Amino acid sequence: MENKGISRAVIKRLPRYYRYLGELKEEGVERISSSELSSKMKVTASQIRQDLNNFGGFGQQGYGYNVNYLFNEIGRILGIDKKNNMIVIGAGNMGQALTKYTSFRSYGFDIIGVFDVNANLIGKSINGIVVQDYSEVASFIRNNPVDIAVLTVPKEAAGSIAEYLVQLGIHAFWNFAYTDLRLGPGIVVENVHLSDSLLRLSYEVKSKGASND
Amino acid sequence: MENKGISRAVIKRLPRYYRYLGELKEEGVERISSSELSSKMKVTASQIRQDLNNFGGFGQQGYGYNVNYLFNEIGRILGIDKKNNMIVIGAGNMGQALTKYTSFRSYGFDIIGVFDVNANLIGKSINGIVVQDYSEVASFIRNNPVDIAVLTVPKEAAGSIAEYLVQLGIHAFWNFAYTDLRLGPGIVVENVHLSDSLLRLSYEVKSKGASND
Repeated sequence: MENKGISRAVIKRLPRYYRYLGELKEEGVERISSSELSSKMKVTASQIRQDLNNFGGFGQQGYGYNVNYLFNEIGRILGIDKKNNMIVIGAGNMGQALTKYTSFRSYGFDIIGVFDVNANLIGKSINGIVVQDYSEVASFIRNNPVDIAVLTVPKEAAGSIAEYLVQLGIHAFWNFAYTDLRLGPGIVVENVHLSDSLLRLSYEVKSKGASND
Repeated sequence: MENKGISRAVIKRLPRYYRYLGELKEEGVERISSSELSSKMKVTASQIRQDLNNFGGFGQQGYGYNVNYLFNEIGRILGIDKKNNMIVIGAGNMGQALTKYTSFRSYGFDIIGVFDVNANLIGKSINGIVVQDYSEVASFIRNNPVDIAVLTVPKEAAGSIAEYLVQLGIHAFWNFAYTDLRLGPGIVVENVHLSDSLLRLSYEVKSKGASND
């Protein structure tokens, strides 16, 4: 069965299902009803049933969901069973932190190259990966299968770097630069805008503060 | 004028408006119509008008929006004009990367303390801030005004740490731990779940790949 025509809203929620099911699995829970999952996740039970129905429905009426089965199936749908090779462009603070993260590897994400233009960073070893000169990126991509480019570069540079990498055959970007990339159709971009997140927090803190006046 | 009763959906979009207006400002653009902003941001012009109307409407019919004024007003609404003191709990890779980020400071976010339980990290200086023993956090909070706690700790530890900090008077959390925090009412949490983001990317890469078969 293929998973065609699933809305982006459902896809956006799948990693969260995956995370909660992983926690339940660790707690030794074998079955869970949509209403129990609902109260845990603070999503309505009917939304849970609807969402999971998109994938053929893993639930049995009256028995709830098999946690382990559902966890594995969602993992498969998300592509956890497939290996993804990543390169990191920008070996600054964030690039280094992501390269040192080992937990992504358990999901099949492997950082196989790190690049920078800064002579002070080139040659430095991060978690066993030596930072290469960004001018080498084209030959690297020709010689190694790269699925995803992680951009941890200043926003001014992000657009032109992404376009260059698209020309080199990269179709997926995990973008940490503080700008939205405008790339062609068929190019996948997932943005992590930390400043946007911090500003939402700032708003909440401010509006709480005001209500205590 | 107060900004009461604004939906969370609008608030979520405000940092993005702020970012685009900042880019326009840098490009020297003084005025922009909702339809121009619409094509830039890929949001409908009517949504832009509706969203900005929530804040008293900065637009003049036929003249568009004054970029600088709108940028400053949204900044004020988001609380950029207020200083927020932050502490970082967890001086690992991500904690260190966030502590080294200087761009948050321009939004009024100041990291004033970093804490860890790891003896190898305690005493280490990150961007001029010395990592303190986590057992000192209570006295630190008593003696320093702290607005936001940044959690870059393992998910197993995040819940109990957050509850402890709530008892110490912290009401806002920027949570990087791979779990949703369940805290009481009135406590503000903004989650950055990098793994969720990576899994969404993984799904997209996988489904594109499949369509090329």
